[in-house]
Amino acid sequence: MDGKFISFEGPDGAGKTSVIQQIQEDLEQQLGKEAVKYIREPGGSRISEEIRQLLFDNQNADMDPRTEALLFAASRRQVVVSEIIPALKAGKTILCDRYVDSSIAYQGAGRGLGEQEIWQINQFAIDGLMPDLTIYLDIESELGLQRIAEHRANQVNRLDKEKLAFHQTVRQSYLRLQQRHPARIKLIDASQPLPTVINDVKTTIHDRFSELF
Amino acid sequence: MDGKFISFEGPDGAGKTSVIQQIQEDLEQQLGKEAVKYIREPGGSRISEEIRQLLFDNQNADMDPRTEALLFAASRRQVVVSEIIPALKAGKTILCDRYVDSSIAYQGAGRGLGEQEIWQINQFAIDGLMPDLTIYLDIESELGLQRIAEHRANQVNRLDKEKLAFHQTVRQSYLRLQQRHPARIKLIDASQPLPTVINDVKTTIHDRFSELF
Repeated sequence: MDGKFISFEGPDGAGKTSVIQQIQEDLEQQLGKEAVKYIREPGGSRISEEIRQLLFDNQNADMDPRTEALLFAASRRQVVVSEIIPALKAGKTILCDRYVDSSIAYQGAGRGLGEQEIWQINQFAIDGLMPDLTIYLDIESELGLQRIAEHRANQVNRLDKEKLAFHQTVRQSYLRLQQRHPARIKLIDASQPLPTVINDVKTTIHDRFSELF
Repeated sequence: MDGKFISFEGPDGAGKTSVIQQIQEDLEQQLGKEAVKYIREPGGSRISEEIRQLLFDNQNADMDPRTEALLFAASRRQVVVSEIIPALKAGKTILCDRYVDSSIAYQGAGRGLGEQEIWQINQFAIDGLMPDLTIYLDIESELGLQRIAEHRANQVNRLDKEKLAFHQTVRQSYLRLQQRHPARIKLIDASQPLPTVINDVKTTIHDRFSELF
């Protein structure tokens, strides 16, 4: 397959959305709109979006974490088959907002379902299709949460504390993944000013794909 | 958990539905309506039924077989947590119309996704909760298909042939499962007249749970 598969990962508050938007814009200018494909997870194809609706339906608050993990994997499988593989075959550059690493960090570590178990069901879902390059936007959990909730940064309540422990667990999992797969996963310091972060991301993409940027 | 968990398995045309109906009726007479719980898969709980709708929606003909397998597992997980475990804790007898073995035989073997792979994602879904007893209604594939399509039994077309190979693969998988788990899975010859089959099933249930029948 001729395309390039780049995924973006990171805890909440790392600025992932802003970074991807800028990268997408600049790549579209360089390569043309049709040569770049943005995919958000979960979702991205018709069936995957229907699964996304199930996942985020407020009525489904009694959904078990394992059900959730299996639905994420099901949604991922469908977007791989109906969107990612065809786009790669057509030579496109894919910018994927979250992929397998998110499930490992959030469900495997954060929700305590086991990183190895989540890796196994996702291995079944993706059938070996891993990104060529994963941009991991790293940020300290305190700073990430602070960015999200800037208007009440100085009021730390019980929920915030729970959140902090959860986010720290997620971040530690991301850091372990990066150490285990240093060739694929590149860590970017997302505590820097946004323009610096974007510049670092571009350099990292260029290092892997010299024809980009 | 005090309850009894009985699953019913078998290829199409084995008479599973008729058998379960009779067993349920007779058990309800013996134990009372509240002591018996019938569960159909996929489905059986609100979220599971929503997943079932996704699975059987004619619009979703482009659903990948792995997506399908993950959705079956997700539906199963939810019914385990929200229906089966509470019913077992309440001491009920559960009659489950298909469970993990169906996924292994149909998706793992029939659809060629791999029995071991399907077992792994289902292991994640059920988290160790296997039936105490599985009634496997065995029937030769030719006879099973003949029963389904009795009105055109003598016209075998290309699709019927494909169907036959598929059903034979599914049956072989069931037979392997039975050989591997002889203490849990009991084979009943479903080619016999229905009253005889039902009688054999009752004897088998009684052998495992002497207080039933």
